[in-house]
Amino acid sequence: MLDKDRLFPIEPRARDIARSLYNEVSTLPIVSPHGHTDPRWYAENEPFPDPAKLFVVPDHYVFRMLCSQGVDLTSLGVPRADGGETETDSRKIWRLFAENFYLLRGTPSRGWLEHSFEHVFGLTKRFGPETADEFYDHINDCLQKPEFRPRALFERFNIEVIATTESPLDDLKWHKMIKESGWTGGKVVTAYRPDPVVDPDFEGFAGNIEKFGEMAGVDATNYDGYLEAHRIRRAFFKEYGATSTDHGHPTARTEDLPKAEAEALFEKALKGKCSAEEADAFRGHMLTEMARMSIEDGLVLQIHPGSMRNHNDDVMARFGRDKGFDIPTQTNYVRDLRPLLNAVGMNPKLSIILFTLDETSYSRELAPLVGVYPSLKAGPAWWFHDSPEGMRRYREMMTETAGFYNTVGFNDDTRAFCSIPARHDVARRVDCAFLATLVATGRLAEDEAPEVARDLAYNLVKRAYRL
Amino acid sequence: MLDKDRLFPIEPRARDIARSLYNEVSTLPIVSPHGHTDPRWYAENEPFPDPAKLFVVPDHYVFRMLCSQGVDLTSLGVPRADGGETETDSRKIWRLFAENFYLLRGTPSRGWLEHSFEHVFGLTKRFGPETADEFYDHINDCLQKPEFRPRALFERFNIEVIATTESPLDDLKWHKMIKESGWTGGKVVTAYRPDPVVDPDFEGFAGNIEKFGEMAGVDATNYDGYLEAHRIRRAFFKEYGATSTDHGHPTARTEDLPKAEAEALFEKALKGKCSAEEADAFRGHMLTEMARMSIEDGLVLQIHPGSMRNHNDDVMARFGRDKGFDIPTQTNYVRDLRPLLNAVGMNPKLSIILFTLDETSYSRELAPLVGVYPSLKAGPAWWFHDSPEGMRRYREMMTETAGFYNTVGFNDDTRAFCSIPARHDVARRVDCAFLATLVATGRLAEDEAPEVARDLAYNLVKRAYRL
Amino acid sequence: MLDKDRLFPIEPRARDIARSLYNEVSTLPIVSPHGHTDPRWYAENEPFPDPAKLFVVPDHYVFRMLCSQGVDLTSLGVPRADGGETETDSRKIWRLFAENFYLLRGTPSRGWLEHSFEHVFGLTKRFGPETADEFYDHINDCLQKPEFRPRALFERFNIEVIATTESPLDDLKWHKMIKESGWTGGKVVTAYRPDPVVDPDFEGFAGNIEKFGEMAGVDATNYDGYLEAHRIRRAFFKEYGATSTDHGHPTARTEDLPKAEAEALFEKALKGKCSAEEADAFRGHMLTEMARMSIEDGLVLQIHPGSMRNHNDDVMARFGRDKGFDIPTQTNYVRDLRPLLNAVGMNPKLSIILFTLDETSYSRELAPLVGVYPSLKAGPAWWFHDSPEGMRRYREMMTETAGFYNTVGFNDDTRAFCSIPARHDVARRVDCAFLATLVATGRLAEDEAPEVARDLAYNLVKRAYRL
Repeated sequence: MLDKDRLFPIEPRARDIARSLYNEVSTLPIVSPHGHTDPRWYAENEPFPDPAKLFVVPDHYVFRMLCSQGVDLTSLGVPRADGGETETDSRKIWRLFAENFYLLRGTPSRGWLEHSFEHVFGLTKRFGPETADEFYDHINDCLQKPEFRPRALFERFNIEVIATTESPLDDLKWHKMIKESGWTGGKVVTAYRPDPVVDPDFEGFAGNIEKFGEMAGVDATNYDGYLEAHRIRRAFFKEYGATSTDHGHPTARTEDLPKAEAEALFEKALKGKCSAEEADAFRGHMLTEMARMSIEDGLVLQIHPGSMRNHNDDVMARFGRDKGFDIPTQTNYVRDLRPLLNAVGMNPKLSIILFTLDETSYSRELAPLVGVYPSLKAGPAWWFHDSPEGMRRYREMMTETAGFYNTVGFNDDTRAFCSIPARHDVARRVDCAFLATLVATGRLAEDEAPEVARDLAYNLVKRAYRL
Repeated sequence: MLDKDRLFPIEPRARDIARSLYNEVSTLPIVSPHGHTDPRWYAENEPFPDPAKLFVVPDHYVFRMLCSQGVDLTSLGVPRADGGETETDSRKIWRLFAENFYLLRGTPSRGWLEHSFEHVFGLTKRFGPETADEFYDHINDCLQKPEFRPRALFERFNIEVIATTESPLDDLKWHKMIKESGWTGGKVVTAYRPDPVVDPDFEGFAGNIEKFGEMAGVDATNYDGYLEAHRIRRAFFKEYGATSTDHGHPTARTEDLPKAEAEALFEKALKGKCSAEEADAFRGHMLTEMARMSIEDGLVLQIHPGSMRNHNDDVMARFGRDKGFDIPTQTNYVRDLRPLLNAVGMNPKLSIILFTLDETSYSRELAPLVGVYPSLKAGPAWWFHDSPEGMRRYREMMTETAGFYNTVGFNDDTRAFCSIPARHDVARRVDCAFLATLVATGRLAEDEAPEVARDLAYNLVKRAYRL
Repeated sequence: MLDKDRLFPIEPRARDIARSLYNEVSTLPIVSPHGHTDPRWYAENEPFPDPAKLFVVPDHYVFRMLCSQGVDLTSLGVPRADGGETETDSRKIWRLFAENFYLLRGTPSRGWLEHSFEHVFGLTKRFGPETADEFYDHINDCLQKPEFRPRALFERFNIEVIATTESPLDDLKWHKMIKESGWTGGKVVTAYRPDPVVDPDFEGFAGNIEKFGEMAGVDATNYDGYLEAHRIRRAFFKEYGATSTDHGHPTARTEDLPKAEAEALFEKALKGKCSAEEADAFRGHMLTEMARMSIEDGLVLQIHPGSMRNHNDDVMARFGRDKGFDIPTQTNYVRDLRPLLNAVGMNPKLSIILFTLDETSYSRELAPLVGVYPSLKAGPAWWFHDSPEGMRRYREMMTETAGFYNTVGFNDDTRAFCSIPARHDVARRVDCAFLATLVATGRLAEDEAPEVARDLAYNLVKRAYRL
């Protein structure tokens, strides 16, 4: 079903080069340093429930596309925040998905799904309304077998290490359970994602801070204690393998405020009295504080800015967060990162990985910045741009100014477990295609390309994330 | 003269696939749901005057290029707003055009013109100073013949339906004449373009509103009457086949103001006392009101934002509007459309087609928005981007997030009648080339591609515009 | 070592067309109308000191990349502004460069360097740590020979004319020395770059104005005298071959202020009391004044906007300007150029060449503007975009709206003398590849392409810069 040469250049000579590069990297272990799979899966190692709950209900790429054509989210089983009814018949959901599968033509989701069907479940027919039931039954049967439980798949997928993402308010109990289980087949680490305790606009910020202090064993309601709580929880996360922190702000704004000013904002935030501008300044200031802590404790700092979350009020009210209504916005890195970079940007101990949803920043801002600051690296093409054309544009627009070695290889950023091998496979193929094009046009020597291919697929990510 | 395989991929295997897809769609009827041809042509069916008046004088793509190289617009016969002299010798204009034809190398205009010369007039020599007179004479002769009159060409072009664009202040007399003429060979419909009565900055706004009320038979100088006048005129336009409205605002700004506020702005607008900001807010609010009416009466709402009209004051004073001095600007859809989308964006009865002159919005804003909101679709690559490279970028940047089925096929948006078949041919070729590339790189099955090709060339546009 | 077909299309038929076009242009003389080589080289004609000082120490493309990976600028011999120690052992610098040469994979610098090694010095081995000493010794030996002195290389490079860039405060003594030397092998002209005397934020502005007046023989501390000083110095620069002025503002902002207002800003600037906004307004106004003088004296006006200079305070303090920390920013041409264009934009005597570091402006702003205003032309892909992918994007995004004849061919904008032939070679190859693609896809006739290729490589630049 899948084309063995998919995503390679069309011209035969370049295709041969790409194929040969791909053979060098296709079986390298997967290093997945940033994602949103559920550590509970690996802790409990229970079977995944059914095809719809595996592939449709939790995948916002899939249900947003059906939503765009008028399919109501409830008919896809998406749970309602308001507690109202939603479809519970998984086979019905699956059939609705199959009827609308043609909508995914030309999208990466289509590729990920077909790769999963074939490579994970051995299904090589075309998926659609006629084969929906056959696929459902087959996948459902598989999911009952031991070799389709999370840990078995993890090992089959050849994942060397995966990171999940947790809030400082998380007790990491699933990570503890994994650690104590004696499982030797896979390494699962956490990452420190402090949005609930650095963003004054986050639901229940004051309560979060209180809980934060309790968990850290300090009084986090004063600014010094608050910073100390971060240090303590970061150290705790490091015990569960964390090598990075992650920050999902609306913009790339940073600030380096005098302490008294930061303190005053923090106090306002606790009282819920920050203006939008003040909340933004506080978030921006905390990025610089996080960078300072990174210099101390060695955690790599990831910045994922530029998404306007929950664009539609009605959907937010009915279904809550992460329902496909997060929309990218213009992001300014040159102006916004400057306070942080003036404070700590030349420190070679600091490592910041920048992501973007605004492709215009690749050649104009990100490549020039990561191509000169020792503390900066560029994360891979992200979210909507985690796709063949998105990755191609990334390499074409980044490489000439940033080179390869200021990028950090691939990460999948996914909560769709079965798509992990597919996504890494796409990244490896697109990178090999890009390298093959450089070789075929005399820009890279044929004997250098395999080394670069291996770096992009495996070495750079381990080095960048200190794994 | 024209290459039979133009715009197809270069690599032979991909070219074969593209050629075969093109054979599926090249003879499908043309559906032209948005354009600016003159309904009077089809009503009166008089001969077009001469080659210069057909191809040069009214085509801002052509005369702007010559203007950029120092050719004065008056020497191309462009009429002066100030009543001053302009060239009237069409053969002289034609020769000047021929001398400068090389300036159009690499532009879509060159392609449209050569396609028209060959396909409409059977001219296969190279056009230029040496052949200028030969072309002039031949085209001039043709234009006298019955088979070159507007209706005959319309039928020869295989146009199934064409929409023109009229102001609510238009009495639609040419449409009435067409309707009553009994012509069975073609369908010509209107579209509702209310800029003169929704834009407080439009010349003569207050007078327009008065006339608007008279035509609708209500008092449009109070806000309720004004809205009612829209409803009445929209219904009148529907009698003449209208299935859409069209809105050409400077930005994509929308508002959903409390009635009292909208009312107050309207009253200020009538007195000519709106600030720039207030005029913008009123336009933005009217988009939401238009969307509400669309839910009632089923008219599809088109938004064409982001052109800074009449960039040069001197040219505006001497020649008036639409003289090639409309320049694209950055456009923000994510922030600006939110008020409208929060008000009515989840209503599946609503259909809004979004256009852009800012290609950076494709992957960052438009694809993510149309890829989730049931009320939104993306119009094709527009204006300066209605070109082979522009269309290729559109598909490459839109498809992975929006898919094909949140786009609406092609529309030509032209006032250059003879270029219509050429433009649709380019769109079909570029889409087939894109699909062939997906097939050749294993992203789309070879047996699915023809269906998508037919959808892009014919089905999607009929469905999207409810034609 | 270098691939003879580098940068050509991969598909054999298109490659053949590109190769044949390249054969038409590869040996045409180099016209280099904008750059930053040191006129002293051509005046004194002394040997270049050593390989490190030729290729590493002055090349911010090279040292910024090493800096991004944690190499301190001092270890690369970059001179310190604070007078502190820096590496002086050129062989040690060279070895460090060689060890890190792999970082440049995929960058244009890699291509320029390899081209220089092979074409200037006859070195065809792969450069790297193993060959570092061999390269050093060989290049060092060469540099002692007469045929590697600046004038000999200039002639070998087949440079017909080169422009350097000088401040109005420069006495042009090196240009005088060149002029008086009787050297017939090359033409070196200056260009008028008045940043130090038009930018109120420039270090020592008031002192600069005083010196400016002295050099012009007028009192430049009043506004009329100040404008007169410009006229006088421009005339002086014309005596040394200047055909252009150059303006490197943070934005593309222009103003056309009433004289009293401009005068008031000038007086404030002299007192160092301009706000950031006022300084920006004054710079913007001076662009319009410069345009007015260009209409009088015929100098072509170049605008190079959109770089945020000296992004890192620490680096600026330690090393000063031009150390790789100039980062591009979003630039708005449509709004910002309007005051100037309304004042003088339709004057066919005026010629303004626009550059950008913001590639999003190509299709959205620059192509539409240069495609209609007789006074505007687009400069080539600039700085970070002076690269194969950057040039390809430039042609793909500019040509369909601006055509070829509103662009001005290539200029190298470099201070790296040996890279000049390499850069022009890249531009010629990429343009030929682009033209070959147009031919192979039926968008340009095969017999027209050579003429366009020659125009892009040689004729357009001479015409645009009035050389």
